[in-house]
Amino acid sequence: LPSRVISFFSQYAPTRCASAPTSSEQGTLPPCHHHEAVHDPQLVPCPCPLFSCPWEGHLEVVVSHLRQTHRISILQGAEIVFLATDMHLPAPTDWIIMHSCLGHQFLLVLRKQEKYKGHPQFFATMMLIGTPTQADNFTYRLELNRNQRRLKWEATPRSVLECVDSIISDGDCLVLNTSLAQLFSDNGSLAIGIAITTSKVHSAEAEM
Amino acid sequence: LPSRVISFFSQYAPTRCASAPTSSEQGTLPPCHHHEAVHDPQLVPCPCPLFSCPWEGHLEVVVSHLRQTHRISILQGAEIVFLATDMHLPAPTDWIIMHSCLGHQFLLVLRKQEKYKGHPQFFATMMLIGTPTQADNFTYRLELNRNQRRLKWEATPRSVLECVDSIISDGDCLVLNTSLAQLFSDNGSLAIGIAITTSKVHSAEAEM
Repeated sequence: LPSRVISFFSQYAPTRCASAPTSSEQGTLPPCHHHEAVHDPQLVPCPCPLFSCPWEGHLEVVVSHLRQTHRISILQGAEIVFLATDMHLPAPTDWIIMHSCLGHQFLLVLRKQEKYKGHPQFFATMMLIGTPTQADNFTYRLELNRNQRRLKWEATPRSVLECVDSIISDGDCLVLNTSLAQLFSDNGSLAIGIAITTSKVHSAEAEM
Repeated sequence: LPSRVISFFSQYAPTRCASAPTSSEQGTLPPCHHHEAVHDPQLVPCPCPLFSCPWEGHLEVVVSHLRQTHRISILQGAEIVFLATDMHLPAPTDWIIMHSCLGHQFLLVLRKQEKYKGHPQFFATMMLIGTPTQADNFTYRLELNRNQRRLKWEATPRSVLECVDSIISDGDCLVLNTSLAQLFSDNGSLAIGIAITTSKVHSAEAEM
């Protein structure tokens, strides 16, 4: 069960990945301007969606960049709880945390966004700070639990080499409308239980 | 694990509960014209959202009415899989099944509806064919599992004495956007795993 609880304050994200199309109809990932700028395939643009950051560097130094430049906290442990505060803030708003687990670091992005004007929704996804091939080895679970309701989302994390905006515009993540977010919130804060497992555990379970 | 699989064809629902407000902002249930017409508190209007049905009767005969008049199938077993076919049909469309379990009958309603014009979503909820007090004794779980993704929703079922339109317009149910519904569908069909437990089991689990 949860090993740690942390409060984390949101920040605005006015300038992220503005060139990515927002259509959710396409099955393929829309292009992301971050990636177009990467010529050396070993170099990763800053994956932090909070700021328009010109930094790029090797995967190995992404974590220290996120900690030092963007002051993003790291939570440790197999199962943690991330408490996103001030859920009432207007869209667009991002909540970001790093999660260190099983020898890797993951980035949780919770985004409040108006896909349909006047109807903000919350989107939560987890990305591995690593390659897509490495990401395929893991399964992440996000869990909300309050007011006799429980919502669990399990999926393979994406790699930070992919664009978080594409994942959210595709809707391939945990999606919450405002009323559900309110039901799961306590005094304006949303507690998200996070667990990471290796995919071997996941695929050993019987498929429905 | 699932004890039975059934295909069930959808039907249109052109005339259901049209007077109920669709605002999702209110925390309380909006009034439903079905209920206003019930003077004898022992009498239940037909809870089937597929048709505008003038029938009303005692709770004990709702199941036989749904079977005989509306030809709604009953699935038996603690854990079942409901296969909703033809997910591509235009909104509004309802998929309905009864589930017999733990000595009671439950009604699953899956609805495709355009809450935001041009953006159909899927809403799934489970109702007890019984009173709200009886419904509080149970927990239902809906589970989707495909393409390395899993989505689980757990909640207390509502009573058929409440209006299904209110539950869906409040968004207090499993909500799927079109892209997620496609990811979880196989050849246009969505398999929904359904399990019912008594609430004692649920509340004995540790809260997050």
